[in-house]
Amino acid sequence: MNNGYEYARHTGPKVVALGGGHGLFASLSALRRLTDDLIAVVTVADDGGSSGRLRRDLGVLPPGDLRMALAALCGDDEWGNTWSRVIQHRFRCEGELNGHAVGNLLIVALWELLDDDPVQALQWMGRLLGAHGSVLPMSAVPLDIEADVRGHERTAPTAVTKVHGQHMLAKTPGEVLGIRLIPENPPAVPEAVAAVRDADWVVVGPGSWFTSVLPHLLVPELAAALVETKARKVLALNLAPQPGETDGFSPERHLEVLAEHAPGLTFDLVLGDSDLVDDVDGLAKAAAALGGQVLLTPVAVGDGTPRHDPGRLAAAYGRIFVDRERIAPWR
Amino acid sequence: MNNGYEYARHTGPKVVALGGGHGLFASLSALRRLTDDLIAVVTVADDGGSSGRLRRDLGVLPPGDLRMALAALCGDDEWGNTWSRVIQHRFRCEGELNGHAVGNLLIVALWELLDDDPVQALQWMGRLLGAHGSVLPMSAVPLDIEADVRGHERTAPTAVTKVHGQHMLAKTPGEVLGIRLIPENPPAVPEAVAAVRDADWVVVGPGSWFTSVLPHLLVPELAAALVETKARKVLALNLAPQPGETDGFSPERHLEVLAEHAPGLTFDLVLGDSDLVDDVDGLAKAAAALGGQVLLTPVAVGDGTPRHDPGRLAAAYGRIFVDRERIAPWR
Repeated sequence: MNNGYEYARHTGPKVVALGGGHGLFASLSALRRLTDDLIAVVTVADDGGSSGRLRRDLGVLPPGDLRMALAALCGDDEWGNTWSRVIQHRFRCEGELNGHAVGNLLIVALWELLDDDPVQALQWMGRLLGAHGSVLPMSAVPLDIEADVRGHERTAPTAVTKVHGQHMLAKTPGEVLGIRLIPENPPAVPEAVAAVRDADWVVVGPGSWFTSVLPHLLVPELAAALVETKARKVLALNLAPQPGETDGFSPERHLEVLAEHAPGLTFDLVLGDSDLVDDVDGLAKAAAALGGQVLLTPVAVGDGTPRHDPGRLAAAYGRIFVDRERIAPWR
Repeated sequence: MNNGYEYARHTGPKVVALGGGHGLFASLSALRRLTDDLIAVVTVADDGGSSGRLRRDLGVLPPGDLRMALAALCGDDEWGNTWSRVIQHRFRCEGELNGHAVGNLLIVALWELLDDDPVQALQWMGRLLGAHGSVLPMSAVPLDIEADVRGHERTAPTAVTKVHGQHMLAKTPGEVLGIRLIPENPPAVPEAVAAVRDADWVVVGPGSWFTSVLPHLLVPELAAALVETKARKVLALNLAPQPGETDGFSPERHLEVLAEHAPGLTFDLVLGDSDLVDDVDGLAKAAAALGGQVLLTPVAVGDGTPRHDPGRLAAAYGRIFVDRERIAPWR
């Protein structure tokens, strides 16, 4: 009951995080500790596994990346713990359900019930989970990724061929040169565009570079919002090249590829792990080409595996958000 | 915040409802309007449809009757409405998910996650749904029903054969003489036994007589609790014979069959619809043989279809619970 007093509530800065998969999961797991005003904008181009089967069978958006983002936003209490485990749970059996994640099925059911409104259904999921923030698809249209790959066929190592589908692309032995979306220039979800324009901070990455990070930049309204927003922008680097997708890519190469896909897009800050970047000057030069500085700080779990530690990542973002008025170099 | 005052909260009588399927759904939809202290004890012998596939593929209890009971306990607000629709929603597609109810998959996932503890998982479902009451399986062991049926084979109308499985039994053209559970004498869920012993009121039926109502009486600890409880007991009649399962059965025949399966079990009251019972004296005699009186009152929707109206059923139970001290005939 309202007792006549109101309490000031610190919700933290408005943060929008773009990505997909495990990279976005790490990013959101960190960011939700710093702010309650958090929106994830998630890629919808997956065509493998449970998501791929559902989009084929039911004609819906692939739900997997959305589900994983929702799981990352679950709280650390018993409710959040239980429901994040439930939606991440995959059936393992001989039968037809094998491999399906429970949360994927729940999201799809809500889409079917709520007149295919992907945003409203994800709001209901968020309410169920008590999520600390909300999750939006970058487009309401299921998308496919097509890539130019050099050496996709091992027998023709210099030939450039088209590789179709996120699933195939993630395991190509060749060098990915660039990607396109199919359909080209898809419509953005309006709420996602508004969130980017209205944010204090936008965080892009980490994540599978060609299949989780760059796709957002090929949605024209989203790309324009990213260019024009007054928000400060952080680009979070991956901790290591990804076998297949970005084999042999240096941190600088990641930045160059991003710039090729998003002309005019600048970043205020490029965030990397202090122990895992060898050529600091090279990275600083590449960051400067994007208009930004480099912040190197420990964000990996520290056991040698290239995984982000949510606590360390939260500390890094905490420092970044607090330092927002600083002009001096972050490094 | 606690302001130092406490408010007395009327929760209503302790009611336990036994059954399964649409009959139990109707019963719970009515009872949840009268009390917050409501426990459903649900049959677990289904072997058809989504439930049958899940118990075969994943080795779990058939979840369908439990799901339907949970849906009936959902509130009439937006939260309850939405989640009851979600768990009742069935996928319709060409693919592997066709026919599965979303709530069945959610219950099974919780079972898998929560160490196969069927009771705890159903508590979590209840918390998710904001359910007005709770749902227990009658046994933690998946059960099968075997029946003696006269004339199951149309070519041998007087021969008595064994018919195996709830699914087959529900559509037999023959006369069902009696049922057994396989395994015989299964263990009851202890919480269900305790609930029956501790109740103010126990409601048995309505529902598919041989496949949803009588199975409970063949679980020895549950049958003993039903005989020994100090609770008042109501037997709610079906509104019409069920094609296949109870074709041509009079209300009295329903009571006789029940008595044959549960020696020593008495009822205080047999509840029927005033417009749908022809031979009132015959029914009163059969009820007296069970130790009880007959209450006839309008409980059907009134459009000629044999479906219970939740509001009318609630009114009937309200009258019954209020009249609990009456000794005079109910009729």
